[in-house]
Amino acid sequence: MNRSSSKRNLARQLIDAHLREGEAEAGKEIGLCFHQTLTQDATGTLIMLMLEAIELNNVKTDLSAQYVDHNLLQVDNKNPDDHRFLLSACQRFGLWYSRPGNGISHAVHMQHFGVPGSSLIGADSHTCAAGSLGMLAIGAGGADIVQAMAGQPVYLRMPEIWGIELTGELPDWVSAKDVILELLRRHDVDGGVQRILEYFGPGVASLSAMDRHVIANMGAELGATTTVFPSDQQTRAFLRRQHREKDWRELKAEKRCEYEHHDQIDLSTLEPLIAKPSSPGNVVPVNDVAGEPIFQSYIGSSANPGYRDFAIVAELVRNQILPADISLDINPSSRQILRALSKDGCLEAMLAAGARLHQIGCNGCIGMGQAPATDQNSLRTTPRNFPGRSGTREDKVWLCSPETAAASALTGKITDGRSLKRKYPRIEEPEFEHLDQSLFVKPQNGDDKHAGNNLIKGPNIARMPELKPLPETITLPVLLKLGDHVSTDEILPAGTDVLPYRSNIPEIGKFSFNDIAPEYHERVAKLDDDKLHLIIGGKNFGQGSSREHAALAPRHLGLVVVLAKSFARIYWQNLINFGVLPLTFAAPDDADKIEAGDTLSLRAWPKALSSGESITVELNDGQQKFELRHQLSERHLQLLKAGGIVPWLRKKLS
Amino acid sequence: MNRSSSKRNLARQLIDAHLREGEAEAGKEIGLCFHQTLTQDATGTLIMLMLEAIELNNVKTDLSAQYVDHNLLQVDNKNPDDHRFLLSACQRFGLWYSRPGNGISHAVHMQHFGVPGSSLIGADSHTCAAGSLGMLAIGAGGADIVQAMAGQPVYLRMPEIWGIELTGELPDWVSAKDVILELLRRHDVDGGVQRILEYFGPGVASLSAMDRHVIANMGAELGATTTVFPSDQQTRAFLRRQHREKDWRELKAEKRCEYEHHDQIDLSTLEPLIAKPSSPGNVVPVNDVAGEPIFQSYIGSSANPGYRDFAIVAELVRNQILPADISLDINPSSRQILRALSKDGCLEAMLAAGARLHQIGCNGCIGMGQAPATDQNSLRTTPRNFPGRSGTREDKVWLCSPETAAASALTGKITDGRSLKRKYPRIEEPEFEHLDQSLFVKPQNGDDKHAGNNLIKGPNIARMPELKPLPETITLPVLLKLGDHVSTDEILPAGTDVLPYRSNIPEIGKFSFNDIAPEYHERVAKLDDDKLHLIIGGKNFGQGSSREHAALAPRHLGLVVVLAKSFARIYWQNLINFGVLPLTFAAPDDADKIEAGDTLSLRAWPKALSSGESITVELNDGQQKFELRHQLSERHLQLLKAGGIVPWLRKKLS
Repeated sequence: MNRSSSKRNLARQLIDAHLREGEAEAGKEIGLCFHQTLTQDATGTLIMLMLEAIELNNVKTDLSAQYVDHNLLQVDNKNPDDHRFLLSACQRFGLWYSRPGNGISHAVHMQHFGVPGSSLIGADSHTCAAGSLGMLAIGAGGADIVQAMAGQPVYLRMPEIWGIELTGELPDWVSAKDVILELLRRHDVDGGVQRILEYFGPGVASLSAMDRHVIANMGAELGATTTVFPSDQQTRAFLRRQHREKDWRELKAEKRCEYEHHDQIDLSTLEPLIAKPSSPGNVVPVNDVAGEPIFQSYIGSSANPGYRDFAIVAELVRNQILPADISLDINPSSRQILRALSKDGCLEAMLAAGARLHQIGCNGCIGMGQAPATDQNSLRTTPRNFPGRSGTREDKVWLCSPETAAASALTGKITDGRSLKRKYPRIEEPEFEHLDQSLFVKPQNGDDKHAGNNLIKGPNIARMPELKPLPETITLPVLLKLGDHVSTDEILPAGTDVLPYRSNIPEIGKFSFNDIAPEYHERVAKLDDDKLHLIIGGKNFGQGSSREHAALAPRHLGLVVVLAKSFARIYWQNLINFGVLPLTFAAPDDADKIEAGDTLSLRAWPKALSSGESITVELNDGQQKFELRHQLSERHLQLLKAGGIVPWLRKKLS
Repeated sequence: MNRSSSKRNLARQLIDAHLREGEAEAGKEIGLCFHQTLTQDATGTLIMLMLEAIELNNVKTDLSAQYVDHNLLQVDNKNPDDHRFLLSACQRFGLWYSRPGNGISHAVHMQHFGVPGSSLIGADSHTCAAGSLGMLAIGAGGADIVQAMAGQPVYLRMPEIWGIELTGELPDWVSAKDVILELLRRHDVDGGVQRILEYFGPGVASLSAMDRHVIANMGAELGATTTVFPSDQQTRAFLRRQHREKDWRELKAEKRCEYEHHDQIDLSTLEPLIAKPSSPGNVVPVNDVAGEPIFQSYIGSSANPGYRDFAIVAELVRNQILPADISLDINPSSRQILRALSKDGCLEAMLAAGARLHQIGCNGCIGMGQAPATDQNSLRTTPRNFPGRSGTREDKVWLCSPETAAASALTGKITDGRSLKRKYPRIEEPEFEHLDQSLFVKPQNGDDKHAGNNLIKGPNIARMPELKPLPETITLPVLLKLGDHVSTDEILPAGTDVLPYRSNIPEIGKFSFNDIAPEYHERVAKLDDDKLHLIIGGKNFGQGSSREHAALAPRHLGLVVVLAKSFARIYWQNLINFGVLPLTFAAPDDADKIEAGDTLSLRAWPKALSSGESITVELNDGQQKFELRHQLSERHLQLLKAGGIVPWLRKKLS
C-alpha cells in the first residue's frame, strides 16, 4: 500500500523523511538512513570490534552515543576493561561516551539527544522508547548499527502501521505502564510483529513525554518494529525542562490519514494490571491476584525510568517502614533523576522506609543483581520477565507499575493501590538548573586526527572472528528442536556469568542454549571438523533482547541454518548479518516431522532463493521433502554469500 | 606477668572484668565471657548451622546481632536465600537481624549497640573496631562465637598489652587512617600478633570516636588480638549523637600502669601515608609515589566508615568534575550515614562531580563489585589490599585516607592533598533526630516459644558436615608447601564466585587454594579413600579475614594437620575448632627440608602433645626427624579428640 500521495500518518511521514532505497510498501525491503545511533556496553564492544574490522575512520552519523549501563557489576577485570576499551573506541571513532553512573541509555538519550522528527537506530531492543518524542527509533542488531555508523542505509521490511487511538484520561492509581500492559493483554508478545504502533487521539495529550517513554519502550514486548507518538506541547514541556526547547517541533498525523490496523483504548476505563510469570503477555488485573505474598519490589529500568516513577514510590512509602521480609530495591535510571530525588528528599523518604538503593543502571533488569530468592515472587517495573532473566532459575517475576510495586511492598503482598484507601499522590516534574552533560566525554569531531588513537584492549577483548561463507549445497545435522517464543535470553543468557564475555565470542559461545538445551555443546563436539549444523525453532523464534551474540555465538560454533515457524524481527536480521540462513516452513506443521538427529539437505540454495520465495529441503537423504519459505532480498543473499556483514561491508567501503 | 594487684592498664581492666577461667598472664590460656556477639552474613550462615547442630534453643548473650552486609550482590537465588535463612534463624535462636541496606556490621554495631566496658566477640576479623568505644572486642572464628552464644567461655591465649602513647594533634590533610598506616609502616602485618594495642596519652582526646574506629579496625592488619581506646568525652559525644548517652561511662588506664610493650606517636609529625600493592604493611609517604596514574578511588568499608570519611570527599570534589577515565566509587557504610549525606547535600555534591554511588555495604572491599581494570591502580580507603581481593587478578590496590583518595581522583594520579593548595575542609558531625532501629528485626526474647520456628533453607544451604576425630597415629602425605603471610583470602577466596557458597561446605571446598595452588584438588583426588593429608605453611599463616571456611573447607577435603613457621591467631583457633592440628617447627628452617610429595608420621599425638610442648615428626619413614612445637591446652586436645567443636559442644550442652 503506497500512500505517499494521500494523507499520511506520522509513522509514514517519518519513514518517508528517512527513506533512501525501496518503496515504502508493507512487506517490501526499504533502506533507511539514520541520523543518530545508540549503543550500550553489552552490545557496544562487539560493534567497536566490527568498526575496527571494517576499518572505519570516523562515524558518519550526526551523533552516535555509547552508554555504559549494563555491565556495571565489576567482579573482576572484564567489565572495567570493557569500559576503558569503549572510551578508547569512542575517541578513536568519534562517538559520545556516557560514563558509568550517567544512566540507562534510553532515558539519558531522551534527556540529552532526543529530537522530534529525527531518527535513531540502537543496538538495544528498547531503542524504540525514543518514539515517545516523535523520533523514528528502531532497535536492531549491532551489525545494522555499524551500517548506519558507516553512512550506509539500514534495511528492513516496511512494517504495517497500527493506529492506536487513545481517549479519556487515566484514573488515579493507573499509570502509563498499565496502558502498555493492556495492549499486551489484548495482543500478547507477538501482536505487534512487523508493525509500527502509532498513538493518536485526544487521550495522548494527557500523557507526559516520560509516560509515553514507558509505553513506547515496551512496544518491544509486543514485537513491534517501533512506536511513534506525536510531538506536541507535552514534548515541548519535556524539552524545555531539559533546556533544549529549541529542538522541539510539532509533529502529528495528517488529518483523515489511514492506518493498516486499528485499536482504541479509553484510558479512563483502565485498571492496575500485572503480567504474571514468565511472559510480558501474561497480563491480568492486579485485583485478580491480590493477596499473593511477595519477597521483592523492584523499581527502575528503561521501562519506568521517569522521575515520577521513583517519586511516586517515595510518596507511598514516606513515613512507613517496609515489612521485615520485603526487599524494596531502588535502581535509579539516570544521574539527573537521582540528583533530583536526592535534592527534594524523595531519596531520603525511601531510605527511611527501608528501601535498598542500588547504583544507577540497568542492574537486575538484565540479571545483574537483585535476583529474588528461590520460589519467591518479585514484582518489577521492568519490561521483561522471561524465565530466569532475573538470575534465579525458575524465578517468579511479575511486571507492574511503580504504584502497584510500592503498594505491594508496603503490604507484603500483591496489592492494587486503590485498596490502600489513600489519596493518590500527584507528582510534579522537577526543574533542572541546566543540561548537565558533564558525564559525557565528547567526541573529537572535525577531522581524522584522532584516527591514530589506540584501542585499549584488556586480555578478555578478542577480535571479531572471521566467518566463512556457506557452501552452495549443504547437508546438515539437526542438533536441536526448540519450541515457540524462545527468547534471545534463552539462546544466550544475560547475567553476571555471561555478560562480561560480550567482547569475546569464543568464550561467550560456551553459554549458547545452556539454559534450555545444555546437550547442545556435547552434540556440537561430536560433529566433524567444520561443525556446521542446523536447528529447528517454533513461532516467534528469537524474541526479546537485540543481542546479536545470540546469532554470532552459535554461528561461531557452526550454526548456519535455522528453520522456524516464524522469527522475531531483530533476531532474523542478526542471523543474516552473521551469515546464518533463516528459513520458515511453508506448512508450519512440517516442523513436527523433523527431530534432533535428522539430517537436512539444501541444494544450490543461493540460486533457489534468488529465483523465488520457496526452496525445498530433503530430510534424511530424500525420505521426505519439505517446502521452506524465505523473505530474503537480493541484498540479503549477497550478505549470506559474502559470509556476513563484516566482509561485505569491508569490501563495499574499500 | 600477673599485675592484677598493681596499677592496671585499660586492657587489663577489661580482661579482668570478663575473665571466667585461667590466669591473665601473657601466653596462658584464659576463658572470657562475652556479653555481645556480632555475625555477618558471610560467616553467619555457618554459625546458624552450628547452632542447629548443637541443638541450642536460645542464645545466652545479652545481645547477639546478625548483619547482612557482605553478600548483597544477588546474581542468583543463593544470597537472597541466605538472607531469608538468616532472618528465620534469628527468629529461631533469639538474635537481632540487621536487614540488607542497614549497613556494615562494625559501623552499625557501634552506632546502635557499642557500650564502653562491655564485651563483644564477632565472626569478623574487624570486630576489634568496637575497641574504639572502650569495649573488649575480639574477632574470632564462628565456632568461638557459637561458644559465646551458648553461654560458654571463649578461650584464647592471654595477649601482651602494647601501650601506644599519642601526643600532639593531626595536621591538616592527615587523618586517622594515616595513624594506623604509620603503625603498619613501623611494625608490618605481624607486628601486633598476640598483643592488645592500647592507645593512651594526651593525643587521644583530639580523635573522635569514629577516628578511633578507623584506628581500632585496622589493628587487625597488624595481627593484633584487639585494640582498646579509653572511654572519654569524645566517646560520650558520640553516644549522645546516637541518643544513647546513658550507655556512656568513663574508662581509662590507671595512673602509672605498665605495658609489656611501648610505642609513641606524635600526631603532629605525621604526613599522608599510603600502603602500596599488595600488603597493608607496605606503607610509604604519599609524596614518595605522587604522580602515579590511577583508574579508581574507592571510598567506604569498615576501615573508613564515618560520616566525615564521606563528607570530606564531598567537600573536596564539590563543584568539580572528575577526569573522564577516573571512577570514584562511593560505598556508603550505613543507612544512618547515607541519609545524613543525602539530607545535607554531600551526596548531591559527589553525584554532581561524577561519582558512582553504590549500595550500602561491604561491596568491593571483599571483592563484591568495583574491581579495577587490568593493570590499573586503585586507591581505596578499605583495610586490606591482599593480592586479588578486589576481584581482579594481579590487581594494584593501594590503601589510603579519604583525603588522599579524593585528591587523587580529582587529579587522576596519586596526590598528597596538601599539594592541592586548598583550604582543608573541617567536617562537623551531623545530629540525628533519634536512634532509628527500624531496619533491625528484634529478637523474640523472653521464652522459648519461638524455638519451634522453622529454619528457611534454600537449595544451596546444606547441613554442617560431620567430621571424624583424627586417629592417634597418622602418616600423612604433604600436599602443599606454601610461603609466608598466606592469607585466608588465598586459602579460600572471597568474591562473587565463592561467597555465595558460604552455607554449603561441599561446594565452597572446591575453591580451596585455587588462587595460589590449584594443583591441590588434583592431588587430593589421587589420595586414598580417607583423603587425610597435611600442608606446610610459612610465617603468619592464615592472616587476614576471620573466615573459618578457610579451615573447615580444606578439613572437609581431608586436611588434618598444618605445619607452619607461625600462625595467625584466628586461623590457628579455627583449625582446632574444626579438628585440624596446628603445629609449628621448633627450628623454622626445618620447613625448608620438607617438600610436597613427602610423607610425615606423627605417633600417638594426643599423648605426646599432652605431656609436653613438643612432638617429633618423622619424614618419609624415618629418613629424618623434626621437632615440632604446639600451644595446645588440654581443652584444645579434647576438642581435637572429639573431632572439633560441634561434637564437643553438643556433648557438653546435652
